Amino acid sequence: MTDIAKYLPPILRHDGVCFLNGDGALAVRDRRAYPFEDKWVLCRDFREAADAIRAMVTQGGGPLEVSLQTLRLCARERDASPELFRACAETLSAARPTNAAAARELARLLPEIEKLFAAGTFSPEAVDRIAQRALDAFDAAYLKIGEKLEARIADGDGILTTCFAEHSFFVALSLAREHGKRFRVFIPETRPYLQGARLTAPSLRELGFDAVLVTDGMPAHFMAEGKITKYVTASDAALRDGTVVNKVGTLANAIACAHFGIPYYATSTGIDERRGRRDVVVELRDPEEVKRVRGVPITRADVPACYPCFDVVEPRLVTEIIAPEETLCPNMR
Amino acid sequence: MTDIAKYLPPILRHDGVCFLNGDGALAVRDRRAYPFEDKWVLCRDFREAADAIRAMVTQGGGPLEVSLQTLRLCARERDASPELFRACAETLSAARPTNAAAARELARLLPEIEKLFAAGTFSPEAVDRIAQRALDAFDAAYLKIGEKLEARIADGDGILTTCFAEHSFFVALSLAREHGKRFRVFIPETRPYLQGARLTAPSLRELGFDAVLVTDGMPAHFMAEGKITKYVTASDAALRDGTVVNKVGTLANAIACAHFGIPYYATSTGIDERRGRRDVVVELRDPEEVKRVRGVPITRADVPACYPCFDVVEPRLVTEIIAPEETLCPNMR
Repeated sequence: MTDIAKYLPPILRHDGVCFLNGDGALAVRDRRAYPFEDKWVLCRDFREAADAIRAMVTQGGGPLEVSLQTLRLCARERDASPELFRACAETLSAARPTNAAAARELARLLPEIEKLFAAGTFSPEAVDRIAQRALDAFDAAYLKIGEKLEARIADGDGILTTCFAEHSFFVALSLAREHGKRFRVFIPETRPYLQGARLTAPSLRELGFDAVLVTDGMPAHFMAEGKITKYVTASDAALRDGTVVNKVGTLANAIACAHFGIPYYATSTGIDERRGRRDVVVELRDPEEVKRVRGVPITRADVPACYPCFDVVEPRLVTEIIAPEETLCPNMR
Repeated sequence: MTDIAKYLPPILRHDGVCFLNGDGALAVRDRRAYPFEDKWVLCRDFREAADAIRAMVTQGGGPLEVSLQTLRLCARERDASPELFRACAETLSAARPTNAAAARELARLLPEIEKLFAAGTFSPEAVDRIAQRALDAFDAAYLKIGEKLEARIADGDGILTTCFAEHSFFVALSLAREHGKRFRVFIPETRPYLQGARLTAPSLRELGFDAVLVTDGMPAHFMAEGKITKYVTASDAALRDGTVVNKVGTLANAIACAHFGIPYYATSTGIDERRGRRDVVVELRDPEEVKRVRGVPITRADVPACYPCFDVVEPRLVTEIIAPEETLCPNMR
C-alpha cells in the first residue's frame, strides 16, 4: 500500500490529528488554534472526545480519526463492554449531526467489536487492529479519490476550494505536481472559523503550492476574470441523489461556477445511502461565532446574527461526486 | 424640501460624516473605527482630505461629502485661486478611482467656482452656498431614490444587502416601515473592511430595524431557504449599459439572486455616462488587509493574498438601477 503521508501537510498526518498519549488520554490537535498555537486537547473518555468534536476542536475528517482512536481508548477502560462501545458510538455519532463519515464508520465497526466480546477474544490490541485496518482503508480511499481528482486537474488551472478539503485534495494536488502540472489554488478564508485562512492556506504553503487567500465574497470576482477554472471541495455528506452537504459558502460558489461554466467536483469517502435530501439536518451554531473573529468583536453587542453551518448543494450544481468506488455525475441526470 | 436626516442613522447625517471644525480643519469621521471608537481624522488641506479618502477613513458616499466640504476648506485658504480648486478637484477625484459620484460632482462644481473668480464675486460664503446647494440636491436625490426603492419593498420581505448601502437604502426602509411593511434585513459582514458588520448592522439597529448579521458566504444559503426575497445595494458606479460596479461580493450575490429568481436593485445618484464597462478600473488594495481582521492576523505571515476592491456586475444580473431621474432595467434588454 502506498503511504499517503508524504502527500499530506503535518496537521493531516494521523499523529498530527490525534493520538493516544500513553497516559490513558487521547490528545486531539486543536485546529481552532492552528496555525497560531500548537495546542492539544486531552480527552479522557468518549464523552470528552464527543465534547471536543462538538466544540470543533477538530472538524472535517478529524471526527472520524478521533472516533477510531476513541474506540481504542474505550478498549483500555477497566469496564470495557459492548454497552460501553454502544454508548461511545452513539455519543460520538451525535456530536456533529451533519458529519456522515464518522457515524457511518462507527456503525460499521460496532458489530465487529461486539463479535470480539461474543467470541471471548476481546482485548485492547484486537480493537487496535480494527482501528488500524479502518485507518488503512481510509488512506487507500483517499489515494483512490486523489488519483481520480488528479485526472481532472489540467496544467494552468486555477482551483477554487472552500474550507479545508483535506486528504484527497492534498493527494490530488501533490500527484498533479508530480505529473508536471502547474496550477494556483484560490482559498476563501471560510468565515466564521477561518478554516481556509488557518488550515488550508498554511498547509498548501507548507507543501510549497502556489496558493492565494481571498475573502468569502471574492470567488465570483476571480471567475469573472477567468482566473478560476475548477472548483473542488470535500463533502460533509454526499447523498445518493447527488446532493452535496458541505461548509456554508459552498452553495454560493457552486452557483457561481454553474453561471460561468466551471466544473464543481466534490470528494466523498462514501456515498451516504441512509439519508435523502430532506433528512439533512443543517446544524445551527452559536451566532456569537459570527460576531467575532479570533475572539475580536466585529460588530456591536446588540446586533443579532445567524450561523447555519452547512450548505445543501442541489445535484444540478454538482459536476461530479468523486468517491473511491464510484463517481456520480449529478448534473447529467 | 423634506429633511431626510430623520430617516438616517447618525453616521450618515451630514455632520456625522464630516464638518469644518472652526479651527481651519475638516474633521472626517473614521468609519474604520466605527462602532468601536468615536474617532475623527483632521484634514488641513485637500491633500490630507484625499489621503483620508485613499485610506478609507470614509467610503461609499463619504468621499462625496468630504469633497464638498474640502471645497469650503480651500475657499478659506489665503491663496485660494482657480488653480488651487483645480488641483483640489483633480487630487480628490483620483483618490479612489472606482468611486464615480465625487469625481462627477467635482467636475460639475469646478466651473461654478471658476465663474466666481472670473466675476470677482469669489468668497468663502459663495463657495459655502455652492456646497450647500449640492448637499441639498443630493438629499433630494436620496429621497427620490428612496421613494422609488420603497415601492419595491413588500410586506414580509427578506432584504439582502452588501457593504453599506447608505442614504437611499435607509430612506427606503424608513418609508416602508412608515407604510406598515414588515421585513428583515440580512447583512453580510463584508470582509475585509467589515462595513456590513460595523456600519450597516449597528445603523439598522439604531433605527430599530429587524436585522441579522451573516458571513459573506451565507446569502445563497438563506436564498435556498426562501428567506431572502430582494437584494438591494448602492453602487460605486452605475454605467449607461446597465453595468453595476460595487463592493466585492456583490457579484456572487447577484448571481445567486439570478439563480433563485430574486430581483436585484442597485441605487445610483446618477448614471455614469463617461465610462463603458471596459473603462472600469478595479482598484487592487493591499493584500495585508485580507490577512487581518481589525488588526488580528487570520493566517500565517507567509500566505499570499489578493484584494480586488470591487465587483463589476454584468447587466443581465441587474433587475433595476434606481437613479433619481430614471430607472434602468438592464436585464430586460
